[in-house]
Amino acid sequence: MMTLSKQKETARANLENLYRIFTVPEAPDSTLGSIDQAISDNVADFLQTHIVAVERQLEEIEADFSNPVIPEEPTFVSEYTEFVKEKLVAQSVHTAAPGFIGHMTSALPYFMLPLSRIMTALNQNLVKVETSKAFTPMERQVLAMLHRLVYNGGEDFYKTWIHESRHALGAFCSGGTIANVTALWVARNRLFAPGDDFPGIAKVGLARSLEYLGCKGLAVLVSRRGHYSLGKAVDLLGIGRDNLVMIETDASNRLDMAHLQQECKRLQAENIRPLAIVGIAGTTETGNVDPLEAMADYTWEIGSHFHVDAAWGGPTLFSDQYRHLLAGIEQADSVTLDAHKQLYAPMGAGIVLFKDPTAQSAIEHHAAYILREGSKDLGSHTLEGSRPGKSMLVHAGLSIIGRKGYELLIDMGIERARKFADMVRQHSEFELTSEPELNILTYRYCPAPIPQALALATTEQRCQINGLLDQVNRLIQKAQREYGKSFVSRTRLRVPPTSEKMVTVMRVVLANPLTTDEILAAVLEEQTEIVMHPETQAMMDEVLAICAGILPESTSASAG
Amino acid sequence: MMTLSKQKETARANLENLYRIFTVPEAPDSTLGSIDQAISDNVADFLQTHIVAVERQLEEIEADFSNPVIPEEPTFVSEYTEFVKEKLVAQSVHTAAPGFIGHMTSALPYFMLPLSRIMTALNQNLVKVETSKAFTPMERQVLAMLHRLVYNGGEDFYKTWIHESRHALGAFCSGGTIANVTALWVARNRLFAPGDDFPGIAKVGLARSLEYLGCKGLAVLVSRRGHYSLGKAVDLLGIGRDNLVMIETDASNRLDMAHLQQECKRLQAENIRPLAIVGIAGTTETGNVDPLEAMADYTWEIGSHFHVDAAWGGPTLFSDQYRHLLAGIEQADSVTLDAHKQLYAPMGAGIVLFKDPTAQSAIEHHAAYILREGSKDLGSHTLEGSRPGKSMLVHAGLSIIGRKGYELLIDMGIERARKFADMVRQHSEFELTSEPELNILTYRYCPAPIPQALALATTEQRCQINGLLDQVNRLIQKAQREYGKSFVSRTRLRVPPTSEKMVTVMRVVLANPLTTDEILAAVLEEQTEIVMHPETQAMMDEVLAICAGILPESTSASAG
Repeated sequence: MMTLSKQKETARANLENLYRIFTVPEAPDSTLGSIDQAISDNVADFLQTHIVAVERQLEEIEADFSNPVIPEEPTFVSEYTEFVKEKLVAQSVHTAAPGFIGHMTSALPYFMLPLSRIMTALNQNLVKVETSKAFTPMERQVLAMLHRLVYNGGEDFYKTWIHESRHALGAFCSGGTIANVTALWVARNRLFAPGDDFPGIAKVGLARSLEYLGCKGLAVLVSRRGHYSLGKAVDLLGIGRDNLVMIETDASNRLDMAHLQQECKRLQAENIRPLAIVGIAGTTETGNVDPLEAMADYTWEIGSHFHVDAAWGGPTLFSDQYRHLLAGIEQADSVTLDAHKQLYAPMGAGIVLFKDPTAQSAIEHHAAYILREGSKDLGSHTLEGSRPGKSMLVHAGLSIIGRKGYELLIDMGIERARKFADMVRQHSEFELTSEPELNILTYRYCPAPIPQALALATTEQRCQINGLLDQVNRLIQKAQREYGKSFVSRTRLRVPPTSEKMVTVMRVVLANPLTTDEILAAVLEEQTEIVMHPETQAMMDEVLAICAGILPESTSASAG
Repeated sequence: MMTLSKQKETARANLENLYRIFTVPEAPDSTLGSIDQAISDNVADFLQTHIVAVERQLEEIEADFSNPVIPEEPTFVSEYTEFVKEKLVAQSVHTAAPGFIGHMTSALPYFMLPLSRIMTALNQNLVKVETSKAFTPMERQVLAMLHRLVYNGGEDFYKTWIHESRHALGAFCSGGTIANVTALWVARNRLFAPGDDFPGIAKVGLARSLEYLGCKGLAVLVSRRGHYSLGKAVDLLGIGRDNLVMIETDASNRLDMAHLQQECKRLQAENIRPLAIVGIAGTTETGNVDPLEAMADYTWEIGSHFHVDAAWGGPTLFSDQYRHLLAGIEQADSVTLDAHKQLYAPMGAGIVLFKDPTAQSAIEHHAAYILREGSKDLGSHTLEGSRPGKSMLVHAGLSIIGRKGYELLIDMGIERARKFADMVRQHSEFELTSEPELNILTYRYCPAPIPQALALATTEQRCQINGLLDQVNRLIQKAQREYGKSFVSRTRLRVPPTSEKMVTVMRVVLANPLTTDEILAAVLEEQTEIVMHPETQAMMDEVLAICAGILPESTSASAG
């Protein structure tokens, strides 16, 4: 057993160590110091060197993270950093790689890293002015800049509202999901606003509010390309997923207006109120834009809330050439943007904007020790409470890159997507499954003469062929990811969009300015090589055998 | 007008500049490079040097952030960095200062900054394995570690659940608000789970679910010290703020069990179902802990969901000496923790834990391109979608600081709060308005002989005196903040907690290990100096005049 004096000595040593981590910076030549320096010097190099390309099995990685016991004793920073380097960094995903074109994460501009560190070091809390001071007006300015990008209000409008204490032009959120939830929350609470004989939904809840309005339920309508966050939103808000009404899309993955109107009429006949119609500006899977103008007009006509989910496509507004694709967005009651997508900020920055600067009063809240009435605290209008100063990085992007810089990025992405679509179209082994409207497209491995055979096949044959192709495409995507040179994602889509059945397709998102045509060519090249593996080759042989039974002899022979 | 070749030249130059920000790191001797270096070298120094102590008026600061126009042209990083340094950093709040004891933000351990940079550089997205790989098992491990801290499950339990693909032991969130919302969302959806003849609330919504259960509404019960995020949660979930039932507290700001039981009975008689009872482990304003054991027993008895909001006090579980204060938390169905509070992670890291690892199935969701069924994607059980790898910083804290290190931090905070309470009690000019149970306390400027006079005063006199003292305390807090040497917050509390009226008090949170007794003494000292200002002195004279009319002559004379 330890003697008392020994115990005291240990306690003093522990205390000193503890003070050290709060007061003594990491030495530049320490393990952490040198990693830090390496990232400062050249982050691209650091990522390239430290992330292991070839994928390990997840189960193997899990073995390094399987102890549920919090260590009793402290660990040296250097020792922990070695662990991070070898077990975490090495086995993470190189999202900034120019060949990582499968998801919506791109390389970051260099300045984002040191500015992020300033943000972390300042550790401001945007919930109130007292813990964020200049960050509050800064965030309000960013909201105004983005509001103007979308709504183009006049000089006087922004002069009046930008720093108006009781209101806000929108809200910063941790991401697009919270932005969408906030938009629909505001819409719901405005529909059931307090009145002379009604205290409002915020007080009495949804059931009594429906009773008050004498309707059976609420509905939110969105095309079947809508983001899954809308499902969470209607669940959370008590509306129910059955009342998230999925509208058919046309051949370009855009919402079908006739079906929208038909569904709204059906709902009204069933005494279910269309709370909101959601337009998409850049569908997650195919990058298409709904007919926003027509939707805005119709939503106005039926007195519903028009929300536009522009998490992906919003920044297209920077482009003189392509802005028109989003025409109608300026009529939306609310708009979601994601700064960690095409504003090139690090992960964790969503934004919701409201056309009417008083809209968020519907979800206003106060507390005695914080968010006092009349204060300029942003926290009185946000779903989240304590929040970091991420808006600083959006402020930096808008200032440093400028409107024209973002325009270049957007234009480059759209043009590269068109080029890649051409490459796919011209390649005899691939089939383009959705035309790029913005900078996202899908395709699948489906070599000639399979498309011809599919056109002539019976339902059963089509089902067989597509089933096998689905497996092949899944294996291609998985193997390519595991090899680690490049990455496309995969999803399931109706091909063509008007058909009944879904097939597995590969999905490409072209937002990284460092992605070159050569990389894109190499992606397709590697995919054709993967198909050579015996497993996939056997499946392809099976497909071609079915096709041979469908096609006239001359055509099918050419595929042999 | 520009000629075509000139235009092309400009376009090429713009493109080159754009590539540069993605490919060329900031030079070490650039403005941003040198700030970055300064923060690396010594963040405390950097903050001390660059944040201006004396506060500028918010209106003045707003002038620097009032242009709603996104700049057309790019700005040099150096120029922008100068702006950030002078206009944003200089006018931010020094939340890490040892004299900043008014809110729940403390100094950060040094290692958090370089590790945050690694996190930002990797830019992982935790929504799915494909964009986060090793970060997914790492986050699952952190959830298991914290789950074990609270629930102390056995070895087999964690072996089974830690990496179980269809479930999760909890969820990382952007903060405590989303954690609380998630907990109540799960509680609501479990109450109305799908059954043989009922598709579940997630599908059919709240109104039909209430009908199905044959009850008029739901209620959430919490003491009147509950956090304002619960108000947002019941609003969002469609329950309504009227059904957030505020329970009286005892003299120690702890929930009154008798009143809780009474209110539950009232609700049941009104056919309103108590959905959840929320216990607080560390009230935001006074740092008290509800009688969690008694609450757990009672909640079990009535078949309700027991949630504990331990956003502040949860880490008290690290302390052998003080852990017992939270006894009963292990019976909670769900628990909220905030890593950006007493786990010393940077802003933006909340956690919700569920005792039952299958609980979150109630809010499960899938999508074709992401979160496929059977995958280990964490995004299928979180309210948020795309999320940064903040859990890495919690993993680092738990590993580097260790259980014993956190214990020291917790013990120091509680002991310092007791010491400060003694200082306030012994000071003739201050009145302690809440005893510290953890590391938070409140007090107000209320010099002798005012307390004696208040005890003898009529209701009207008490109202007058407290009204004046409220103003004085408000002015003290505001002036001290503006001088910038130290910062306490203020709130309104019932003093004593059983009284009807609220008074303004100063609130102190002692979590920064660098706060010394000398700093605390100086805080009180400066406050007494502020009262010397003519404006406050005039108010105090008025108070003393009223007191003179109440007290026997000998007592009041001594205050002259």
